[in-house]
Amino acid sequence: MSSGKKERYQDSKLYRVRHSTAHIMAQAVTEMFPGEAKVAIGPPIEDGFYYDFDLPRALTPEDLEQLEKRMREIIASDFGFERKVLTADEARGLFKDQPYKIELIDGLEQGGLDEYGEPTEDAPEISIYTQDDFTDLCRGPHVENTKQINPDAIRLLNVAGAYWRGDENRPMLQRIYGTAWESAEDLEAYLWKLEEAQKRDHRRLGKELDLFTVSDEVGPGLILWSPKGGMVRKIAEDYCREEHEKGGYEFVYSPHIGKANLWETSGHLDWYKDGMYAPLDIEGQQYYLKPMNCPFHVMIYKSRTRSYRDLPIRYAEWGTVYRFERSGVLHGLLRVRGFTQDDAHLFCRPDQMPEEIDRVLGFSLHILRAFGFSDFQAYLSTRNPDKSAGDPADWEAPTEALREALERAHIPYEIDEGEATFYGPKIDLKLRDALGREWQLSTIQFDFNLPERFDLAYVGEDGQEHRPYMIHRALLGSMERFMGVLIEHYAGAFPVWLAPVQAVLIPIADRHVDYAQEQAVLMREAGLRVDVDQRGERMNAKIRDAQLQKIPYMLVVGDREQEAGQVAVRLRSGEDLGAMDVAAFIKQAQEAVESRSPALG
Amino acid sequence: MSSGKKERYQDSKLYRVRHSTAHIMAQAVTEMFPGEAKVAIGPPIEDGFYYDFDLPRALTPEDLEQLEKRMREIIASDFGFERKVLTADEARGLFKDQPYKIELIDGLEQGGLDEYGEPTEDAPEISIYTQDDFTDLCRGPHVENTKQINPDAIRLLNVAGAYWRGDENRPMLQRIYGTAWESAEDLEAYLWKLEEAQKRDHRRLGKELDLFTVSDEVGPGLILWSPKGGMVRKIAEDYCREEHEKGGYEFVYSPHIGKANLWETSGHLDWYKDGMYAPLDIEGQQYYLKPMNCPFHVMIYKSRTRSYRDLPIRYAEWGTVYRFERSGVLHGLLRVRGFTQDDAHLFCRPDQMPEEIDRVLGFSLHILRAFGFSDFQAYLSTRNPDKSAGDPADWEAPTEALREALERAHIPYEIDEGEATFYGPKIDLKLRDALGREWQLSTIQFDFNLPERFDLAYVGEDGQEHRPYMIHRALLGSMERFMGVLIEHYAGAFPVWLAPVQAVLIPIADRHVDYAQEQAVLMREAGLRVDVDQRGERMNAKIRDAQLQKIPYMLVVGDREQEAGQVAVRLRSGEDLGAMDVAAFIKQAQEAVESRSPALG
Repeated sequence: MSSGKKERYQDSKLYRVRHSTAHIMAQAVTEMFPGEAKVAIGPPIEDGFYYDFDLPRALTPEDLEQLEKRMREIIASDFGFERKVLTADEARGLFKDQPYKIELIDGLEQGGLDEYGEPTEDAPEISIYTQDDFTDLCRGPHVENTKQINPDAIRLLNVAGAYWRGDENRPMLQRIYGTAWESAEDLEAYLWKLEEAQKRDHRRLGKELDLFTVSDEVGPGLILWSPKGGMVRKIAEDYCREEHEKGGYEFVYSPHIGKANLWETSGHLDWYKDGMYAPLDIEGQQYYLKPMNCPFHVMIYKSRTRSYRDLPIRYAEWGTVYRFERSGVLHGLLRVRGFTQDDAHLFCRPDQMPEEIDRVLGFSLHILRAFGFSDFQAYLSTRNPDKSAGDPADWEAPTEALREALERAHIPYEIDEGEATFYGPKIDLKLRDALGREWQLSTIQFDFNLPERFDLAYVGEDGQEHRPYMIHRALLGSMERFMGVLIEHYAGAFPVWLAPVQAVLIPIADRHVDYAQEQAVLMREAGLRVDVDQRGERMNAKIRDAQLQKIPYMLVVGDREQEAGQVAVRLRSGEDLGAMDVAAFIKQAQEAVESRSPALG
Repeated sequence: MSSGKKERYQDSKLYRVRHSTAHIMAQAVTEMFPGEAKVAIGPPIEDGFYYDFDLPRALTPEDLEQLEKRMREIIASDFGFERKVLTADEARGLFKDQPYKIELIDGLEQGGLDEYGEPTEDAPEISIYTQDDFTDLCRGPHVENTKQINPDAIRLLNVAGAYWRGDENRPMLQRIYGTAWESAEDLEAYLWKLEEAQKRDHRRLGKELDLFTVSDEVGPGLILWSPKGGMVRKIAEDYCREEHEKGGYEFVYSPHIGKANLWETSGHLDWYKDGMYAPLDIEGQQYYLKPMNCPFHVMIYKSRTRSYRDLPIRYAEWGTVYRFERSGVLHGLLRVRGFTQDDAHLFCRPDQMPEEIDRVLGFSLHILRAFGFSDFQAYLSTRNPDKSAGDPADWEAPTEALREALERAHIPYEIDEGEATFYGPKIDLKLRDALGREWQLSTIQFDFNLPERFDLAYVGEDGQEHRPYMIHRALLGSMERFMGVLIEHYAGAFPVWLAPVQAVLIPIADRHVDYAQEQAVLMREAGLRVDVDQRGERMNAKIRDAQLQKIPYMLVVGDREQEAGQVAVRLRSGEDLGAMDVAAFIKQAQEAVESRSPALG
């Protein structure tokens, strides 16, 4: 969530409802295990809440049902939520049997941690909230009384393991996830979305459609792309590359490791070290796996003297970078340790900067639209006065250029005041997928820092050296993450232009195989990706398998089709287009490819 | 050199001539620095010889001239080369003022090292050779007397630094390179080739044509591809990819690091550790940069159950690997630390193996011919009885299949008996470039080892599990090395289809710029890579620069061309094709691209 959106959520009734429902759940759990339940933390989260417990046994689905029932009773009882401020000693007395709470109280007393044990700059009071006979250490806010919660709009979802304070050396707790909404309809809509999201889970589809593998032998967070997933990725890359070339980008290649002093010069070892892997030693020099491509593109810029006439220079690369993520947070293609950015760095004169930013934003939208996305939301992060490179006055022009580009592009945007990285203002572009989920993919970042650190220059019309401006940008962001989003957006049913197999020919009997093979050759010559299913299975089984594989076109071939030089065309949605000449089918499929139409059933 | 070729060379007169000339040079050097010259080693090498000396001062080009003169005098004196066998003590007495020789004698005495300090399995006698009053520790062979050397066919070439025994902690010596031939004509031809090779040096051309950069800040042996070099590479990759797809290969992507236990299972940590970089630690697990792609392709194979109907499976990848090379041996694009293989692994049933090998060899030749190479030499390495995986009997069929494929392909081949790696027989395919230099690029290797180590299986028609055969192959080998060869082969004047800029439009005056720009747009729409040189330089300067940049077509545009809708076409060779309609030029250039003709001047 953006900082603005987060603030609005925290001010909302729904936030208080979820927070209070978490307390009610904790009450129900402590009643279920009297004297034995140790409570940890239970915050509201996006779309719901959770609460972590240390319990004498593992919870079952039946427990959740029973807890939900008890929660509805508590809600019906119309208890108020009473707030009280305590000293640390009073709080420790009150929670003397709750060791996790004691640890949180100590953290609050020493300062720097909030009641969830998270770092905070505030020095919060120690407060408790009580409903019925259940009291929790909590800063609030809550609803005034339980009646403000709709008992038909709550649901406990599942239980998952979670280490206390996320530390794998601390106890493993049971985390109950729940959700709460204002109306039963909202709850239903949310549950449908959850179920749909599970069906679309790219990890499941990745396996079913044989798109990619993650193997523990190779290492978590490292993706092995199977031929079909690799094909989709390559088509996406080829399309983007062509568009980049039309847009005046030049492609470079850079290595995956670089000397420590390169990363010292770039500053990554100062401010990004936690995201970098341990160095490796080569002949007494330390080298790091690259977490970013920028220093390499900078070195290519620096490999010659550049003149004002050479600018803008736009270096693009499918650059595979490696960034540290804890194994616990890795998630399919969406959060990985190695990923390929569709990265580019622009070097331009100050007078070229507004146009470059404008072009980049327009180009991002152009590319994302080609993949079937149309619902965008942008966030403009402005200077953090406490932490920023360059002269504050220098920030104004690029920030304004970013803002104007957003205005001209007519996409909704919010300003995240003070949320820029230290090196420059930026735009983050999010898109909403078919389920309305927001994904951050594109980023356009202005950089005051690297040109200075690498002493970049161009020779101006005046014969003097000047400092170029530098812009980082990635549009799809990471090919891995983008593919994850794409799989979920389309539920694996890729548009024809991206489908790894576009059509499968299904001969009804052995005597139709030769004809099917001949048509396949024609279709391949026309640039289509076509398989022939010549297994000894029945036609209906082949059609079902093709549908499961989400192949756009099934082309059934029997006696009649063979005699007429036709194929019987069926879409993966089940729609039957009837028999058509092979040439007509080829034309139709080619049109679907060229239009990049996402709509084919 | 292959082992067969090396043996033939060692038996040749030229080898003895060069060896003896090295001794004569050493005599001349010791005479030039009486009592001060310490001699190290001086073997014949391909096309010549060298000798390493420890001298009181650096040698100058004038010294080389004087040495050459003295060598001719020695040759004219008709001295014999006398051999004598000594005990180690006698030898130490004789060479008491020559510390390097003493070290070599100690090595000979202890065994395991030859008279060049290189490991050997023989236990050679300690022998000396004497001509005139110069005696050298030497195993021979030599010519009988100096008269057998043609004084008009010798030349000292240059001096370079070389560490004693290649160890950077030992003294730096002066190595004089020289050459010797049977006739003055042979010498001249060789010197011309040397000069031509210098002109074609891909490191020089890489800089001049802005193709790639190696930067000490990034690290030696790590290539930064500039846009123009990247373009050539990408065109080569795209062409190959398309051909691979036609040939039934499927493309995969794999990460650049993998867990230590993957490399243990594959065996790389046993037999290839010296070629691998130090591991890096991620959450207590060791990971290695990949030196090869095979284990990843194997893991993709293993990600599903495979049936006999699925085979052959052919996984291809432009896989970037990292292998340790000492910084002293790195050389431009030809010897690097990180490179991208056009790698593939084939998994097939035993009955499919001969056809697969046949196809792979034919495919290699097809690809290499497309890049303009036509002169091939193959080497078939057979089982080393002392070191081989699998049952010796199992080696017969694949070795025979490799041999038969070579026969059918009608390319000359030699058998390197016992030179196979332990894991299977292989074909190395070398090509000769425009200067007749031999380059090893393609390799086709049969592998008994990995299917066993990873327990690979497919389900046969009998419903049982069977072990598939596995073949490794890289055709261009490494994109870096191949590009180096390509640059030198074409002296940077790439054929039209590969040229990063195919044509440059040269407006004679400012009033022709708009017309030139319009034509450039038309040409780009036709798929050509075209620049407009709109600098304020004179036409001849622009033509000269375009020739230096080896751009295939220069299109001059003045009043006459502008009025007629034409361009005046000139080739980079200087040949003037006269004015032609823009459409006609486009057609001609497209034909040159499509034919991949290497011949355009």
